[in-house]
Amino acid sequence: MPGSVQIDHKPAQGLFVSDETTEPSWRLSTSQPVSYVVRLHSRLLDPADPTLADAGTIGRPAGRQRRLVVVESTVYELYGQEIDAYFTARGVNHETLAVDAHEQLKTMDLVMTVIAAMDRFGIVRRAEPVIAFGGGVLTDVVGLASSLYRRSTPHVRVPTTLMGMIDAGVGAKTGVNLGHHKNRLGAYHPALITLIDPRFLRTLSERHLANGLAEILKIALIKDAGLMALLEEHGTRVINERMQAAGSQDGGACAKEVISRAIHGMLAELQPNLWEHRLTRLVDYGHSFSPAIEMRALPDLLHGEAVGVDMALCTVLARRRGWMTDEQQDRVLRLMRELRLPSWHPVCTPALITRALQETVKHRDGRQRLPLPVGIGDARFVDDLTDAELTAGLNELRILSPRYRTKGA
Amino acid sequence: MPGSVQIDHKPAQGLFVSDETTEPSWRLSTSQPVSYVVRLHSRLLDPADPTLADAGTIGRPAGRQRRLVVVESTVYELYGQEIDAYFTARGVNHETLAVDAHEQLKTMDLVMTVIAAMDRFGIVRRAEPVIAFGGGVLTDVVGLASSLYRRSTPHVRVPTTLMGMIDAGVGAKTGVNLGHHKNRLGAYHPALITLIDPRFLRTLSERHLANGLAEILKIALIKDAGLMALLEEHGTRVINERMQAAGSQDGGACAKEVISRAIHGMLAELQPNLWEHRLTRLVDYGHSFSPAIEMRALPDLLHGEAVGVDMALCTVLARRRGWMTDEQQDRVLRLMRELRLPSWHPVCTPALITRALQETVKHRDGRQRLPLPVGIGDARFVDDLTDAELTAGLNELRILSPRYRTKGA
Repeated sequence: MPGSVQIDHKPAQGLFVSDETTEPSWRLSTSQPVSYVVRLHSRLLDPADPTLADAGTIGRPAGRQRRLVVVESTVYELYGQEIDAYFTARGVNHETLAVDAHEQLKTMDLVMTVIAAMDRFGIVRRAEPVIAFGGGVLTDVVGLASSLYRRSTPHVRVPTTLMGMIDAGVGAKTGVNLGHHKNRLGAYHPALITLIDPRFLRTLSERHLANGLAEILKIALIKDAGLMALLEEHGTRVINERMQAAGSQDGGACAKEVISRAIHGMLAELQPNLWEHRLTRLVDYGHSFSPAIEMRALPDLLHGEAVGVDMALCTVLARRRGWMTDEQQDRVLRLMRELRLPSWHPVCTPALITRALQETVKHRDGRQRLPLPVGIGDARFVDDLTDAELTAGLNELRILSPRYRTKGA
Repeated sequence: MPGSVQIDHKPAQGLFVSDETTEPSWRLSTSQPVSYVVRLHSRLLDPADPTLADAGTIGRPAGRQRRLVVVESTVYELYGQEIDAYFTARGVNHETLAVDAHEQLKTMDLVMTVIAAMDRFGIVRRAEPVIAFGGGVLTDVVGLASSLYRRSTPHVRVPTTLMGMIDAGVGAKTGVNLGHHKNRLGAYHPALITLIDPRFLRTLSERHLANGLAEILKIALIKDAGLMALLEEHGTRVINERMQAAGSQDGGACAKEVISRAIHGMLAELQPNLWEHRLTRLVDYGHSFSPAIEMRALPDLLHGEAVGVDMALCTVLARRRGWMTDEQQDRVLRLMRELRLPSWHPVCTPALITRALQETVKHRDGRQRLPLPVGIGDARFVDDLTDAELTAGLNELRILSPRYRTKGA
């Protein structure tokens, strides 16, 4: 044996071998292509429409299809028969799992429940995407279960809430809470396709519609002044019409435009930064203080409501820095009231808000990277927000906000 | 409002908007660059050597570093003081978590134990990689915990077993078992760097050395006849010398070459297929029947031992197809005996082996994709193995194999 190491393989492309110190070192470099679809599609449960049954199987040989369908319990009560009838009519050998899903149940335990069902069903590695019907909590949980099972099993999302349609269902993130830490565990694992049928919104409560509108307002405030104007002009009507075409003034055109612009704005932000290699993210607007607010107020605030409080606070902070006018601040707070979004919650003590920012700094790798609005439709990032500034802004917001009333679901 | 949807944003690169049916559809396309290092590095715990303390922080501003160090209990007994002394000497504010880790403990519960420690430690998102000291089970578990925490926290692997050094520590896979399903849950989340110090092998049992040599033999059989010759000529000596330089005939050169060739062969297979988009994988040799054998025999067989039984079976199946000569088959079985690897275990009934293949077919998306050796150093894939062929091969292997004796750890 010679005294030096001989590596007689031809290095594969992307595999760099260094042997300068007689201790070999390899660097493996590669990249993972990812592609997924978000699609508006009416009458998804029409038995004559193959879209949902075929989702994720394009290019695969035909054959008797099998699907595990996970449905949030409330959705199952409302649409369970229709869902079962659809897959039966399409000749899909399916099994339906109905589970309760809300923020307090959004834990690894629920992920393991879904995984156990996947395992019982005996899902084949790539040909049998799990189909998730529900709001953001349900689709986040099923997405994480799919990510873990066989280290990546495909899934298809059918969001049934507005939040699911324009936010949770649009990106690559899946996740669950850990103790009082919001979405502390998860994976980047987008659905093959998210199919959005606004018809589900007709059975959604006004409060849950407002919940989704908070994330739509976020997109408007950071990058789409036209969407802001649309919400100001038509927001109340669109809520009252439950975003349905039937019975609307305009055949549902405005609701569809609001949804489309929100999705488009979100996707355009995510596309160059899907794995968050860059931690300065405009879409984090409303998500700097809200994780702590939401988790502390549970079950009092929905996600979008906590985001609303956060956006209101950041609006006041921006105005105090001179980046928004009084009139722009008033427009934001007025629109939030019209959309039935709170701008305040009693848990918002200076102590909580300060700790919330500290946690967010850890999540943003040691810097605040706080997006603050600049006028309407633009934003910038700051790293220098002081505790004094934060407390002063919080006090001002408390005075500006209508008294908080606990809402029924 | 007009009756059609207007999307007035300029689509981002990689974001394709189709609106042909008046129902808009988006396709987001992107790719995730991934790069990681595997490096042989002696005297890793020398307090004068910054390599381990600085691992994963290249290009970051200096500052008081913090590290969570997760150490397998046995490793902690042997090296705990040295590990603590190293980080203390390097000025790293660290916390050490010692955990038991073996195949039967390789579950999501153990992942959650590691996650709880990460959460208590308050890990910053990207600047504080978790460092894992241990065998493949420990590094797989810490890797999965890191993958889940904040949807991706960096980790650094310091494998202390041969299996960890040339197999578990080399790839991107992390994982845990689910019930009797081997590695059914997991994520692709490579360590930033795997640092391999063969010095840890001096305290490894002969049985665990053989365990790692099984995966080295795999690389030899499927793609590196030279490595096979090296193992035949020096395998026994290398085991007896515990792969150490000190006290060896050749200053450790042969051990280092065996380790390096195994790592290189593995990396070259993984590089073009890191996320297993292609399910015909040469490195699955020995991993078609072994997951079921290993889990059924627990705690009787180590992973590499089950892989050995699987490789022996596939060797016989290949010889029966005329793809190996009798002499080549005998070389493989003889070398396995020399390396103290079993080629048989009493759990290998035709029923178990048939079911094992059925499970593997599900994991390979509906096809066998079974790698079988062709001579020494080459392989091909088959989809047409019959139950009769399998049973006949199994019967022949049982007769060829020395009687199985239960081994002490």
